[in-house]
Amino acid sequence: MESTTRLILPDVAEALAGDPQAVLELTEELRPADLADLTFALPDHLALILVSALPVTEGARLLDELEHERRLVLFEQLATRDVARAADLAEEMSPDERADLIGELAPEIRAPLLAAMERTESQDVRQLLAYPDGTAGALMTTAFVTLGAELTVAAAIEQVRRSAEDMETIYDAYAVAPNGTLLGAVSLRDLIVAKADRTIADIMDTSVAAVEDTLDQEEVARLIAKYDLTAAPVIDANRRVVGIITVDDVIDVVEEEATEDVQRLGGVQPLEASYFQTDLWTFIKKRALWLVVLFVGGLATGSAMRFYTSDAAIAAFVPLLWFLPLIISSGGNAGSQSASLMIRALAVGEVRPQDFVRVLSRELVIGISLGLALSFVGVGRVLLWSDTRTFAMAATVSLSVISVVTIGALLGAGFPLLLRRLNIDPAVASTPFIASLSDVVGLVIYFEIARAFL
Amino acid sequence: MESTTRLILPDVAEALAGDPQAVLELTEELRPADLADLTFALPDHLALILVSALPVTEGARLLDELEHERRLVLFEQLATRDVARAADLAEEMSPDERADLIGELAPEIRAPLLAAMERTESQDVRQLLAYPDGTAGALMTTAFVTLGAELTVAAAIEQVRRSAEDMETIYDAYAVAPNGTLLGAVSLRDLIVAKADRTIADIMDTSVAAVEDTLDQEEVARLIAKYDLTAAPVIDANRRVVGIITVDDVIDVVEEEATEDVQRLGGVQPLEASYFQTDLWTFIKKRALWLVVLFVGGLATGSAMRFYTSDAAIAAFVPLLWFLPLIISSGGNAGSQSASLMIRALAVGEVRPQDFVRVLSRELVIGISLGLALSFVGVGRVLLWSDTRTFAMAATVSLSVISVVTIGALLGAGFPLLLRRLNIDPAVASTPFIASLSDVVGLVIYFEIARAFL
Repeated sequence: MESTTRLILPDVAEALAGDPQAVLELTEELRPADLADLTFALPDHLALILVSALPVTEGARLLDELEHERRLVLFEQLATRDVARAADLAEEMSPDERADLIGELAPEIRAPLLAAMERTESQDVRQLLAYPDGTAGALMTTAFVTLGAELTVAAAIEQVRRSAEDMETIYDAYAVAPNGTLLGAVSLRDLIVAKADRTIADIMDTSVAAVEDTLDQEEVARLIAKYDLTAAPVIDANRRVVGIITVDDVIDVVEEEATEDVQRLGGVQPLEASYFQTDLWTFIKKRALWLVVLFVGGLATGSAMRFYTSDAAIAAFVPLLWFLPLIISSGGNAGSQSASLMIRALAVGEVRPQDFVRVLSRELVIGISLGLALSFVGVGRVLLWSDTRTFAMAATVSLSVISVVTIGALLGAGFPLLLRRLNIDPAVASTPFIASLSDVVGLVIYFEIARAFL
Repeated sequence: MESTTRLILPDVAEALAGDPQAVLELTEELRPADLADLTFALPDHLALILVSALPVTEGARLLDELEHERRLVLFEQLATRDVARAADLAEEMSPDERADLIGELAPEIRAPLLAAMERTESQDVRQLLAYPDGTAGALMTTAFVTLGAELTVAAAIEQVRRSAEDMETIYDAYAVAPNGTLLGAVSLRDLIVAKADRTIADIMDTSVAAVEDTLDQEEVARLIAKYDLTAAPVIDANRRVVGIITVDDVIDVVEEEATEDVQRLGGVQPLEASYFQTDLWTFIKKRALWLVVLFVGGLATGSAMRFYTSDAAIAAFVPLLWFLPLIISSGGNAGSQSASLMIRALAVGEVRPQDFVRVLSRELVIGISLGLALSFVGVGRVLLWSDTRTFAMAATVSLSVISVVTIGALLGAGFPLLLRRLNIDPAVASTPFIASLSDVVGLVIYFEIARAFL
């Protein structure tokens, strides 16, 4: 929370407990995002009083900005007590936020709420909710400006002016045919610069990049970022314009996807809420799955250890064990590096699954070079201890380090590519996963090389 | 590259080799970003012909969009051959891209180029280059609209219309006093909606969030994303408006910072270029540092192994070793989870260094719970093998798993917080680092617990 917002929190809480109308003066200077921060810091009963005390438009702006889990809790209480007020607020919210909120309501609350809303708005909600999460359709808003191609620039500016209040953005408008199909894009910049008597058809950009409503939101983000667009129109299968995605929605997508990638990469199933808003039990569930899977997989290292330590030659030479944790970790470390490079390169579109051979040949060279560098350090250590200073030990350590690091790098780069080709999120190849896999492989390699030399 | 761009590549290459003017027809329909992709795919000598054949405005747009390393190579060749043409192109580029490019030129190329440029533009470059990388000043552009507070709305719209061609954006303008200090913000939306005879002073937003030119670019991104702004004004220490940062610059910052975080988290020093544009030697350098540091640190596991295997009680009980890799990995895995959660939470501002105690108490509970879950699996394994089925072994494995996982979680969460407090990038606490640290700690814990029970 900004410090200025924090300062007025006690006064706001006091006003809400006593005279709710007095709160309006305290909060009128706040931006919606700051008012949302303030509301988040209030206990539920006071936050509810605040949402009810605000004029409907301000209340709706607050709900647009409020953190999603908290918003759901408050709105469910409000809708249970006073469905008419909840419906008024929902009607004034921005269409995309409204659909997100209503989509998460319990069915026994959602049905009466939709029934209490105006028909246009409730239909809009139903239409947006029909799109699967993570698609352009689910991300878009339906409040955008459409213009007839025959309008003059002056008439178009007048139309934009009149409809501005209900629109998420007026900077990007779309020219549509009478049946709703997309003809071209007209930015407010184009309108302002053009002569007043030209028509939309004269000035519109017909090569506008439209996105299909079923497109993945990451693809939408990439398109908007690449072409530095302020917005993109969303079309359905019949090329009818059904919505608009603005650049500020895209920033949220980029942030969200990066967070998910980092969490998956660390071996955590993505969280739905922020760190402190996630309860302990959810954390344990989100982390336990991978930890247990990796632990069960890691039992293979136990079996391998049992197998090799029963070998008389290995058992007789205890110093061999001293280097074991070091060498198998190196494979995991090199693999973590490759995995994180590859997952990010796939996320931003620098590498595609078709580049498999090219990537693996690079990682092969890199892995061998890095392994060589480490093997010098390893052999140095072997030579320093009098009880390991043998040719067999030096050869085992150096050859193992080179092989284990190279294989770690290949696994770390190859797995994300393979997953992407199978249409699984490549970040599932988390660093703990790659490290655990390298443990098993590294252990077998180390002991096999040792057996060859001992 | 988009497939349509790829299709015309052979024709473009042929035209450039023969009749450069013919290329203009082929490329005129392309967006700047696509033309940049196409240029990137051409060999240097053809790319240079293309940049020279284009009209200056289009050539400048192409340079604005071209990948930075390639752009630098081409522009240096161009400036060496024909400094007047290079200066013309630089004058037409967008101010922020131009400063980035000229800042990277070799000094013997930069000086004559700046001398050949118009005075206004070369001064602008010098001013922007004075800002350190990663600050608001280095990110901003200086092409923005300023309005006098006394102007009427109609006059302001006319001024915006006339200056539109040279501006990065006309959607956000700033009202300034005669001495250049910021008075308020006026969006084109405000101008369009307002009555024509009102003044800028009447309609401007005086609570506009300005950023200081020295502010970190991540902070700027957070501000713009939080308040869903399309742009923010940049002010100097005297509150004079010196530039503007638009939301499309912020997307690039968010993408870049996420990439850096993921790479650091994987134990790689951030790359400057994309995966395939980074040569093998750079990769090896960027990865070797951490790998070698972790390997040298990992030598401690060797010393610990040597110490404990010289203990007669431990040496006599070989099955103890079977569980070693599994148990120390679990600590690393839990630590990787905590580190990635914490690094992302710090990056998006959900957690602050002051939350140290609160975070560690959560991780303590989570770590113990996860350790308990894993210890059931571990003890199950102990009971399945006849030669490990002893109380001492079961107690050692379960207690070790619980301790190692808990300590891994605490290290993984605590280190990033500590680094942030020391003003070091928390992502330096990479998953390989946390895993290697957990190896050493886990090994000691395991053998100490074993000694207590054997």
